[in-house]
Amino acid sequence: MPENLGFIGLGSMGEPIAANLLAAGYGLRVYNRTTAKTANLVAKGATVAATAADVASPGGIVLTMLSDDRALDAVCPVQQSFVEKLGPGGIHISLSTISPATARRLAQHHAKYKVDYVASPVFGRPDAAAAKRLAIPFSGPAAAKKRIEPILAAISASHFDYGEDPGCANVVKLCGNFLVASAIESLAETLTLAEKNGVDKVALAEMLGKTLFACPVYQGYGKQIAEQRFEPPGFKLALGLKDINLVLETAAAASTPMPLASLLHDRWLSAVAKGRQDADWAAVSIGVREDAGLK
Amino acid sequence: MPENLGFIGLGSMGEPIAANLLAAGYGLRVYNRTTAKTANLVAKGATVAATAADVASPGGIVLTMLSDDRALDAVCPVQQSFVEKLGPGGIHISLSTISPATARRLAQHHAKYKVDYVASPVFGRPDAAAAKRLAIPFSGPAAAKKRIEPILAAISASHFDYGEDPGCANVVKLCGNFLVASAIESLAETLTLAEKNGVDKVALAEMLGKTLFACPVYQGYGKQIAEQRFEPPGFKLALGLKDINLVLETAAAASTPMPLASLLHDRWLSAVAKGRQDADWAAVSIGVREDAGLK
Amino acid sequence: MPENLGFIGLGSMGEPIAANLLAAGYGLRVYNRTTAKTANLVAKGATVAATAADVASPGGIVLTMLSDDRALDAVCPVQQSFVEKLGPGGIHISLSTISPATARRLAQHHAKYKVDYVASPVFGRPDAAAAKRLAIPFSGPAAAKKRIEPILAAISASHFDYGEDPGCANVVKLCGNFLVASAIESLAETLTLAEKNGVDKVALAEMLGKTLFACPVYQGYGKQIAEQRFEPPGFKLALGLKDINLVLETAAAASTPMPLASLLHDRWLSAVAKGRQDADWAAVSIGVREDAGLK
Amino acid sequence: MPENLGFIGLGSMGEPIAANLLAAGYGLRVYNRTTAKTANLVAKGATVAATAADVASPGGIVLTMLSDDRALDAVCPVQQSFVEKLGPGGIHISLSTISPATARRLAQHHAKYKVDYVASPVFGRPDAAAAKRLAIPFSGPAAAKKRIEPILAAISASHFDYGEDPGCANVVKLCGNFLVASAIESLAETLTLAEKNGVDKVALAEMLGKTLFACPVYQGYGKQIAEQRFEPPGFKLALGLKDINLVLETAAAASTPMPLASLLHDRWLSAVAKGRQDADWAAVSIGVREDAGLK
Repeated sequence: MPENLGFIGLGSMGEPIAANLLAAGYGLRVYNRTTAKTANLVAKGATVAATAADVASPGGIVLTMLSDDRALDAVCPVQQSFVEKLGPGGIHISLSTISPATARRLAQHHAKYKVDYVASPVFGRPDAAAAKRLAIPFSGPAAAKKRIEPILAAISASHFDYGEDPGCANVVKLCGNFLVASAIESLAETLTLAEKNGVDKVALAEMLGKTLFACPVYQGYGKQIAEQRFEPPGFKLALGLKDINLVLETAAAASTPMPLASLLHDRWLSAVAKGRQDADWAAVSIGVREDAGLK
Repeated sequence: MPENLGFIGLGSMGEPIAANLLAAGYGLRVYNRTTAKTANLVAKGATVAATAADVASPGGIVLTMLSDDRALDAVCPVQQSFVEKLGPGGIHISLSTISPATARRLAQHHAKYKVDYVASPVFGRPDAAAAKRLAIPFSGPAAAKKRIEPILAAISASHFDYGEDPGCANVVKLCGNFLVASAIESLAETLTLAEKNGVDKVALAEMLGKTLFACPVYQGYGKQIAEQRFEPPGFKLALGLKDINLVLETAAAASTPMPLASLLHDRWLSAVAKGRQDADWAAVSIGVREDAGLK
Repeated sequence: MPENLGFIGLGSMGEPIAANLLAAGYGLRVYNRTTAKTANLVAKGATVAATAADVASPGGIVLTMLSDDRALDAVCPVQQSFVEKLGPGGIHISLSTISPATARRLAQHHAKYKVDYVASPVFGRPDAAAAKRLAIPFSGPAAAKKRIEPILAAISASHFDYGEDPGCANVVKLCGNFLVASAIESLAETLTLAEKNGVDKVALAEMLGKTLFACPVYQGYGKQIAEQRFEPPGFKLALGLKDINLVLETAAAASTPMPLASLLHDRWLSAVAKGRQDADWAAVSIGVREDAGLK
Repeated sequence: MPENLGFIGLGSMGEPIAANLLAAGYGLRVYNRTTAKTANLVAKGATVAATAADVASPGGIVLTMLSDDRALDAVCPVQQSFVEKLGPGGIHISLSTISPATARRLAQHHAKYKVDYVASPVFGRPDAAAAKRLAIPFSGPAAAKKRIEPILAAISASHFDYGEDPGCANVVKLCGNFLVASAIESLAETLTLAEKNGVDKVALAEMLGKTLFACPVYQGYGKQIAEQRFEPPGFKLALGLKDINLVLETAAAASTPMPLASLLHDRWLSAVAKGRQDADWAAVSIGVREDAGLK
């Protein structure tokens, strides 16, 4: 019978993932800074913990889905944390998109309490999380990874093992987001060139999505950019800039020049300077059109 | 019964396309600068013309598949050309990847002889041409397009109408090539970042091709770049630079800044400076690794 | 006694240069497409030729100061040109900013008539031309250079010999313009960063011009950009784009990636797209401010 | 009579500045982590303090010249620091090149002890410091600035007031370093283009330094890059990367895209990846040549 798990962070991603764990038969003790978010999960069988630390039981497993490095730092390397309570044999499955450097630092911190840290950032948006269509790269100690595979299977369509280094899965996640942002920039330049030459942008985006680039990233962003439709945001532009910054930091730490990432940084930063931080990140394409003199 | 067609240019792309026309029942008069290339097609029923002009018959249709703008200029706007011989009611189906400006200029030239120019550049490599898996954007006069649709259907998997402007189909073709080159650069930076962080590059490329980027461009180039395998060339690096230059020229003529295209230009130019012009164009990724201090 | 010279092209640069030759005692036969421009020079002793070819006498010297490669091509490699009329022993001093490739091609053309081509593009604006403060890099056949040195001395503050290759002096001229454009971009980014941080831009520009960058380029453009004052144009933005394009063409021909030149190209192109082609080229700095969300 | 001052940090810049203060008649209590460095100054009349805090006297003035933000953080916001000892009426003259954000934070910290923070980063190298040829932008509270002006006059050729915001002088210093790095990149591209076209690089650099760019930055770096001579380092490449990173951080905090700074970042990072961190920062030009296929 599936064991009891702890879960911290019930935002738009955390909640559907937690719901899938309940559906798979896991017991769940959940914690969220604002408790209102817990109601749906309680109705499905979860219990609510009073503090982040209280979701843990000795030797057990805790999943976290928090917004960034800082949020994770606020619950992990603190006094009487859930990590301390997990203790020997415990596992922390960290689902957030954070810096590989933070992941490596947390893994070292956890080791002091004999807790294993498994980096498991997820690819996919809330609807994909709900539909169990997430893809999860993961990395960490071998025994811990073996123990948690059924859990990853319960919340994703596929998961991919990247070895023992806790930073590796996060590098992979950043690589994926960098590729998506690159595709957005290239589509934005393409469709602006097309528009300036009198080519039907919507038809072009559709053709590309049926032929050379028959995959969701190009189909979705191609259509969005061709139609210049950025509300409601699927992924906020400001969060995209955060991820591009993580890419550049990670690249700098490894002495890896990434001129395309630099270009994306400048494009996203300009969009923020122009007040577009809350739009979908494909709204950077507005800047491409402005640079070409279009309104 | 399908009519007789003329066909000029029997290189690695032209020959399989011509063969498909024969297979579809079209009669074919072919011309190639070096006649050796015609043997296979003659065996399948084609007849060989002594000059480029001789493939044409009054009011008929001629297809050309030549290497670049200059090669096309050598057979079209010349004295006693096939265009002159086609005359009123004739159609020129131009399959080459050329500049939209050249296409527009040729269309004006043809108009003097009452010949319609239909731009029909093709997406796909020789194997795709042979298997009728090409995708063809096309543009030109409406009546001409209607008459040639069965011909396009005989040589491609799909074709897409981009209106009357003869430049538009060429803009679309350049857009597609720009997107592929952009994907190569972004994969090269991604896989170098991964390598420098100890991530298994081959596994990463495979995962991306199964999840976020499940389309042939990312699957093929991801694998090639992860394995650093660039021989034999599928598409030569020097030809890629030619196309990026066409993109930048077309963009400049339309006052459209394309910083990513500029970045690609510099990357490709450096690869040529280092002597890699005859390798597959994914060999630009070697430069990305060198910039990061890898051998 | 100074000999008689021919002079073609009496625009804002050509006229003051021609006047300096008259002042130095040279006889001058001048030609300009619009004859109105010749009046001042006639008053100073010049005679007016009916055609461009008529300024030349056998074995003599002709100077040209025309706007671009095309204008030069319209008078040189044509039938009964001044080059033909110069014939054996003649020298063409070409003062225009053109492509090194055009210079090399013209030199070969001239050689058919045994005329020496000396590339002598000039650094400086009309006021510097009038005040004999021009700097002139020059290159061409040794004997010809020796013969023309008094002429260069009569129109400039300093001249610099770059050997026999007629392209070299033009490469040098393009290098200089590239450096100035680079200084403009770096000042624009600097002063925008300063403005966004509440630093007094005008004071900063002044300080830089008194300390690290105590030279006219930084003093002039620093002040202009800090004050956002671009009328009247000292050098039109569209002409700047022309020169940056010549730099990139020359660099491409020599397989030399110049990422900073690419960045300048995109910046200048965007300014043209936004309608600033007739402002001073320092007006590209408006785009830098716009990218940072400033009005 | 000049008062007694405290001085912390006697590296290659700190020592000659301290010596100039002694020469101007100031009494000096000095502190350096490694005491060996104090001998010369003691010979000139300085006394040595046992701790950083001991250089301060209540209401007095302390100058610091430390290597970076971290080094400054190690002596300022700590228990029983020199700031605490200065107390009401005290002034801290901070000569280091640090982030404006750090300067602003330190000023707030100092305010708790009623100590005024005056940002006074210096332009110039050790030889310029010794010769009193430094240029110093400074910013901070008006009364404090008035009191320290004789001190700045004793160690520099000129100083420039940038108002009350303690961050502003540091922004100015970063702007200056960014401009120098930009000049290096533009010279490197220029001289590589020249070399590839057979132009005499040394002659070109010399001409530029006599004409358009007759200022020390272009004269010095032009010659260095033309001759490819980078030892001994005048300013280490790794320190240059540190400063470019400070520029980008400061720009990001102010939502100011600086694409040229991004380009410099990638160029410098690649040089570090190739092992050139200890050479003079003009050694980034080696990478420009490598990209063009030169050895």
